[in-house]
Formats: sequence, structure tokens, C-alpha cells
Amino acid sequence: MAEEKSVAIIGCGLVGQSWAIVFSTAKFHVRIFDTLPGKLSDGMVSIQKKMEDLEEKGCLRGTISAAEALKFVKATDAIEQCVSGASYVQECVFEDFNLKRSVFEEAEKYVSKDAILASSTGNIFPSRLSEGMKLKDRIIVSHPLNPPHLVPLVEIISAPWTDPTVVAGARTILNDAGQVPIVAKKETAGFIICRIQHTITAECFKLIRDDVISVSDLDKLMPHGLGLRYAFLGALETSYLNANGMKHFCSMYGEPLYELQKQSGPPIRLEGEPLERIQEELEQQIPLDKIEERREWRDQKLAELFKLKNKTTN
Amino acid sequence: MAEEKSVAIIGCGLVGQSWAIVFSTAKFHVRIFDTLPGKLSDGMVSIQKKMEDLEEKGCLRGTISAAEALKFVKATDAIEQCVSGASYVQECVFEDFNLKRSVFEEAEKYVSKDAILASSTGNIFPSRLSEGMKLKDRIIVSHPLNPPHLVPLVEIISAPWTDPTVVAGARTILNDAGQVPIVAKKETAGFIICRIQHTITAECFKLIRDDVISVSDLDKLMPHGLGLRYAFLGALETSYLNANGMKHFCSMYGEPLYELQKQSGPPIRLEGEPLERIQEELEQQIPLDKIEERREWRDQKLAELFKLKNKTTN
Repeated sequence: MAEEKSVAIIGCGLVGQSWAIVFSTAKFHVRIFDTLPGKLSDGMVSIQKKMEDLEEKGCLRGTISAAEALKFVKATDAIEQCVSGASYVQECVFEDFNLKRSVFEEAEKYVSKDAILASSTGNIFPSRLSEGMKLKDRIIVSHPLNPPHLVPLVEIISAPWTDPTVVAGARTILNDAGQVPIVAKKETAGFIICRIQHTITAECFKLIRDDVISVSDLDKLMPHGLGLRYAFLGALETSYLNANGMKHFCSMYGEPLYELQKQSGPPIRLEGEPLERIQEELEQQIPLDKIEERREWRDQKLAELFKLKNKTTN
Repeated sequence: MAEEKSVAIIGCGLVGQSWAIVFSTAKFHVRIFDTLPGKLSDGMVSIQKKMEDLEEKGCLRGTISAAEALKFVKATDAIEQCVSGASYVQECVFEDFNLKRSVFEEAEKYVSKDAILASSTGNIFPSRLSEGMKLKDRIIVSHPLNPPHLVPLVEIISAPWTDPTVVAGARTILNDAGQVPIVAKKETAGFIICRIQHTITAECFKLIRDDVISVSDLDKLMPHGLGLRYAFLGALETSYLNANGMKHFCSMYGEPLYELQKQSGPPIRLEGEPLERIQEELEQQIPLDKIEERREWRDQKLAELFKLKNKTTN
């Protein structure tokens, strides 16, 4: 039998570290595994540093201190020790099918029969990951956004043969850990988060290709406009509130919205001159050697927003 | 000659009130006009109430108090008094072509020859608004998002015959007022804000039509996921940081992104069964008679986010 509130994390990179923060601050017992002892100890140092940093900024999740949360995390270089007894396994190794597959093959030897096995993958369907495996009905995808401890959304995708209680169980565990799970009902249309994000990216590419707007102006659109609302409201609710409900919205904007889609035209490949221009203009703002610094800035902002959203009523 | 930092606002509804807050808190002299004296006095009361409320919450823009800002706003029921001497006119009457056109015809009788005339319209092109008018080279669209005093983005769209100094001047004035103007280089592809927003809405409708996800799960995607980043980062920068630059991003995700666009299929009409389902599920969360309350909640969140973004370094 799996132990309640016991979680295994496979892979001690950035994603694994962040999952460890998510679960430990919610008082889950976390065992985190990596094959390289050096990576494991570095990862543990990094987890501690991040939690202390979040605590200092008043952005640590949950009700316990960083020091207390840290006690919930144990590192191990033996996968057996990591996964046995865990009720939920979150795989976070490098984005490579064969590697992930071999990790699941190894894990299923030792997990409880009632455990849930989840991959963090952002592009491999669970049926491909689980096909032919002994515990194939217990393997799903729980795809986070980075970093999961600051961006709580997780997309759950299941295979046609997944036990429905596994999806329900994953939703409960992720909810209990303070994440916000959403469920793709159809595997082949999954990775919904990517679908929405890529739709926006593609439209931006078209606007640059057609020289409708400069790159720097276009990139103001979200952080000074639409993105401010989307930080609090769903895309559909945004429209609902922009009129007196969705039917009212569609009666006003349905036709122009249809025309705009037609005007947008066929799919665009992200290459050639528009890509050169976007790269060049963005590099002027953020040189390639400053990307890491800018990511830290982003995560700092995400932490502040997380704090803001959690201190106020929803 | 127009007076510097002197602005005319035509229409004292919600949008006009918000523009009055934007400009007065930035120490522009504002004259706000409406034809109905009752509406004008109600509007002034509402402006005062909103500014005091923002001040109380520590969310008032600019460096002066609500009481001081209020002194910068004068109401008038004579359009001549409103627009004469103004360097910038912001029209905010009801979204009706004939009404807006007649307002501009009236305004151009009294404005300085060097004034900029801008419409708040979200769907009428400036060439249609200005065609055949005496000051047609000085009429543009400055399309805000609601409410402009909390969402600073403004899309400037010009007609083929607009004097380029008018666009540059509008950008400067809006910048000085603390807004974030972006410029559409091509009129027919303008209303870029709507284009991005509608692209997202259309993709959401497709996901609901195909029963890929529930309405409530779908509407978590922005406020607990993508929207958190978009509150601080442009859509292109988001991808740039998700890899080591945009070229790297496209080398990894270009192909799946192209496939996703194909999979998304032809334009969708916002009607029928998916619309019924969306309306029904959203109504369960926000009954139609609670929409106004939820809008107030949204604006409260926008105010808090505005405060957060402005207190921290960018």
C-alpha cells in the first residue's frame, strides 16, 4: 500500500527541485532521486536556497517554514528507495522518450500497485510512455509550467487505458499540494497549455511577418494590456465580463471575430526573415548572455504575483 | 495654438471618466464634456469617488493626491469650451459611427489647428472616421483597454493621410500620461489587441466544441498559468526565455507549433452548442446579475497588480 502524502520525484534538475518545493511546503514527504550523487547534493543545496529566498521575500507557500519544509525532503540515489511506498511519482528527467521510458520501467518494479506515476513531459503522450507496461493503466502526464512552485497550473493527460481513478487521484493530490490541475479529456488534443500559448506565438509571428507592428511594441501588449487581466481571469470569463455574458459578447463580436480568424490566414512556419527580426530586436533588449538574469527577474515577479494573489480573497 | 498639457475628453461615461483619471493624475488640465448635464455631474462624482478609492488603496497613479488631481478636471456642457486650446482630444462617446463622426465634425470647428484628435473606438478605422473632414490628417484612433487608468496599453491607429507628427505626438502625450502606447503600422491590420484576444477566444471555443476540456478547467489556464507570465512578459519574450533565445525556441518547437496550427483547423463561428455550454457553465460561476460585482472584483485585482508593478523596478 502506498503511504498517504508520500511523493517520489525522479530527477533533481530545475523541474524536480521545484516539484520538491511544491510538495514539501504542503507537508508531503518527498524522496527525490538522481543517478549522479553530485547532482543530487547540488540539487538539495539549491532547493534549500530557493526556499530560504522565498521565505525571506514572504513568498513561501504553505504554512510551515523553509527549515521545516526542508525536513520533508530526503535525497536518494536508489530509485527503489525513492519510489517504494510513494502514493504519487513525478518523473522530471530530461525530455527524451527513451530515457523517460526506461525510468518508468525501472520505477514500476518498486512502486506500490496503487501508486500514481506521472511524467512532467511537455510533448510525449501518456499512451506512448505507458504502452506495453505492467502498470500502464496508472501512468499519466502531469505537465507543469515552469517553475511549478510559482506557476501552479498542471495539465493532466491520460491514455485511453488509464484507470479513471488515477486521474481523479492525481487531481486530488495536486490540489492538496496547492497546484491547480486541469484535465485534458482527449489525449490526442492534449497539451492544451501549449496549444493556447502557441496560438498566440503564431499570431505574433504573422503580425511581425506582415510588418504590422514593431517587436518591442508587440511585446508590450501582454504585460501592459491583456496579460494584466489574464493574471486573474480566464480567457472566456474575460469576454463574459466585457459584455453582459458570453451570448451578449458573441452577438456583438461574433462576426468580427470570425472575420479576424479568416484574415489571420493559413499556418505560419516560425522561420526566415520574421524570425531573424524577432531574434535581433529581442537580443537588443536581452542579450543572450543576460537570459539567465532575466529569467531570475521573471521568477522574482512571479513570486511577487503569487504572494499578491494568495494574500487576497479570490 | 494648443496649450501644453491640456486635454479634452468628450463623453463622461465609464471610459471618459477613466481617461480623466489618467490625465489628471499626471497633471494634465482636463476638460470633460457631455451633452446631458445630469450625466456630467454624475460623472464628476464618480471620478472623485474612484480617485479617492484608489488613493485609499494606495493605487492612485502619479505623484499628487486625489484632491489635487480633481482640481485638474473641469466639467463642461459646451463642446467649444471643452476642446478649444486642448492639445489632445480623446473622444469616448457611445460606439456608434454616426455619433462619433458628428462629434468630430463639431470638435474640429473649435480645436486648435495643431491639436490631435483621437477616438477611443475599438472597431472603427480612423480613415472612415476622418474621411472628408477638414482636419482629417489630425484624426487617429487611440484605443484603450478597460479601464485605462488600470490597464495602460493604448493602441494608436492612423489613416493613410494622417500627419506622421500626429502619431508621434500622441505617443508622447500618452507616454507622459503614464499610458503605454503601441502603434499599428498598417490601418487595415489594426486593432491588434483585439486580434490577439480574439485568437485566444477562438481557440478556446474550438477546445470546448471538441469537448477537449471543461469550461471551468479551461478558464484556469490563464489565471493560474500562462496569464501569470503575461502579466510581466510579452508573448515573444516568453518564448525567448523558455529557450536560449527565439532561434533556439523555434528550432525546438517550430515544427510542433506548425502542426498545432494545422490541427486547430478552419475559423470557428461563436454560436450554437459550444456557446450554450460556455454561457451555461460561466453563469453557474457568475450569474448574470452578479457580473457588475465581478467586474468590480476584477478592477480591484487590476489595481493591486498595478500597484505591485509600479512599486517594483522594471
